[in-house]
Amino acid sequence: MEANRIRGVLAPVVTPFKDNLSPDRERLIAHCKWLLARDCGLAVFGTNSEANSLSFDERAMLLDELVAAGIDPARMIPGTGCCSITETVNLTTQAVKHGCAGVLMLPPFYYKKVSDEGLYAYFSEVVQRVGDARLRIYLYHIPPVAVVGITPKLVERLLQAYPSAIAGMKDSSGDWNNTKTFLEAFAGTSCPTASDFDVFVGSESFLLANLRHGGVGTISATANVNPAAIHSVFAEATTRQEAGSVSGPRLEALQAKLNVVREVFSSTTFPSMIAALKQAIASYRNDPEWSRVRPPLIELTPAQAKTLSAEMKAIGFAMA
Amino acid sequence: MEANRIRGVLAPVVTPFKDNLSPDRERLIAHCKWLLARDCGLAVFGTNSEANSLSFDERAMLLDELVAAGIDPARMIPGTGCCSITETVNLTTQAVKHGCAGVLMLPPFYYKKVSDEGLYAYFSEVVQRVGDARLRIYLYHIPPVAVVGITPKLVERLLQAYPSAIAGMKDSSGDWNNTKTFLEAFAGTSCPTASDFDVFVGSESFLLANLRHGGVGTISATANVNPAAIHSVFAEATTRQEAGSVSGPRLEALQAKLNVVREVFSSTTFPSMIAALKQAIASYRNDPEWSRVRPPLIELTPAQAKTLSAEMKAIGFAMA
Repeated sequence: MEANRIRGVLAPVVTPFKDNLSPDRERLIAHCKWLLARDCGLAVFGTNSEANSLSFDERAMLLDELVAAGIDPARMIPGTGCCSITETVNLTTQAVKHGCAGVLMLPPFYYKKVSDEGLYAYFSEVVQRVGDARLRIYLYHIPPVAVVGITPKLVERLLQAYPSAIAGMKDSSGDWNNTKTFLEAFAGTSCPTASDFDVFVGSESFLLANLRHGGVGTISATANVNPAAIHSVFAEATTRQEAGSVSGPRLEALQAKLNVVREVFSSTTFPSMIAALKQAIASYRNDPEWSRVRPPLIELTPAQAKTLSAEMKAIGFAMA
Repeated sequence: MEANRIRGVLAPVVTPFKDNLSPDRERLIAHCKWLLARDCGLAVFGTNSEANSLSFDERAMLLDELVAAGIDPARMIPGTGCCSITETVNLTTQAVKHGCAGVLMLPPFYYKKVSDEGLYAYFSEVVQRVGDARLRIYLYHIPPVAVVGITPKLVERLLQAYPSAIAGMKDSSGDWNNTKTFLEAFAGTSCPTASDFDVFVGSESFLLANLRHGGVGTISATANVNPAAIHSVFAEATTRQEAGSVSGPRLEALQAKLNVVREVFSSTTFPSMIAALKQAIASYRNDPEWSRVRPPLIELTPAQAKTLSAEMKAIGFAMA
């Protein structure tokens, strides 16, 4: 097991925008610091960050600015997977040079029904072009959005060719059976590459299950607003794991509480979870600027914002 | 009816790559000239061009190079729709400044199930940011690939707000009923904005049908290899249209011949139509360099290339 790999709870950090829709550097830095102070790692430029709504230049510039502001690269795994291999290589190289813990890499997602052979060629080319022993790629499986997904066969082939560069994956399929398949194939103790392939679940509702089956944590949208509670489940589970068993009513109760919060933000009442999370941050910070999203996403209406606020109150939720 | 709009047959021009996978400027220019000489307009940077496998910089540079090489911008509608509004605006502005006939614009395609309101906000913002009366947008509906599509309600709202900037669409749904819906709503004589909304079909198999119902042409992958024959159907249909009726056995026979050619290239024997088209160009020009694609697409195997060659021979097809 590679010692200093990033594990635990990570937030796909939401990206604030100014009124001209440009990325708001200051607010982003402040939010990153707030998350880090709550033991939350930073998966900047994920789906939840509206990263694909940013230009290549905006992404590259923001990463430089975060590092310049003193955000620890060892706590970051920036999203770098674009449709274009040249952009993926450039963003990944930049992240590696900054000393980031790794990169979260979408497959190229424009063409659909592409072959595993084509995806293998793509990732293979990326690893070779980046050509840096420090590279750690977390493959990003999110079929509800990217449509193009990551299969076990693809992971197997990539791990065989690049055992050090292919560090793990984020499974945002929302399907626990799929996560289990990957855990059993690549992270279980029966596997020769055991625990060199780190599986993160894309929702903290699977956090305990993931940790029980050899996974290493979660990269979850709601970590933007609920990092401390999610981390407490991770921390308690890890302590118990060392003692031999990840179970007990207290742990189950903590997990159940996480699920209740997640349910509020996942409600189909809202145009998107991203917009709901930003609205919650806007309320928490009393800063309406935070609610802004880039098209094609849309903000919550005032009525929806009220509903969200009432629902958070009803479950006794406050950002922490 | 706006006089000098681009109409007829356009090719989503395939993009050749060098052995280091960088775009091959010289071969691209030569292919564009070959197409122009066959009355074929240039929808450079379309799906078929692997445009989303190019970086923003590569796309921008290639357009500059095409114009510098003397390719007439009035015969080009570059694809400029990216996931990021900033990149879409920049590529579109560049195309307008070059005097391109228009731009072919994908909706932002990363997030799925986005609302028409969000898409309206997106396109609206693009039109306003480009802020140029010469802007002509052809909305690009290709749900099998982009998943995110263009609805009649969205077109209606955009046409009301921007009747001059919204010039038409390319329908690559492969569903004639969908094309008909758009034609009847926006291009038919019953419509107040009649013939200010130009509908191109994404496959020449619908060319005659499209022209009969008020459409203006086709932007079709196979125009890369079969431009002259496709243009002859357009030309003959246009002549007959002026005489009052787009029909007759000769026209039907010409259309049927187009369909036979298209079928060869659409065969699921091949990994993609793009790879098959490039292989055909490689054979025709006796230039294996042409067969290269960027990952995640893959080239035809030698056996598949043989099959393609045999099938072209069997139907008596030669590039022209």
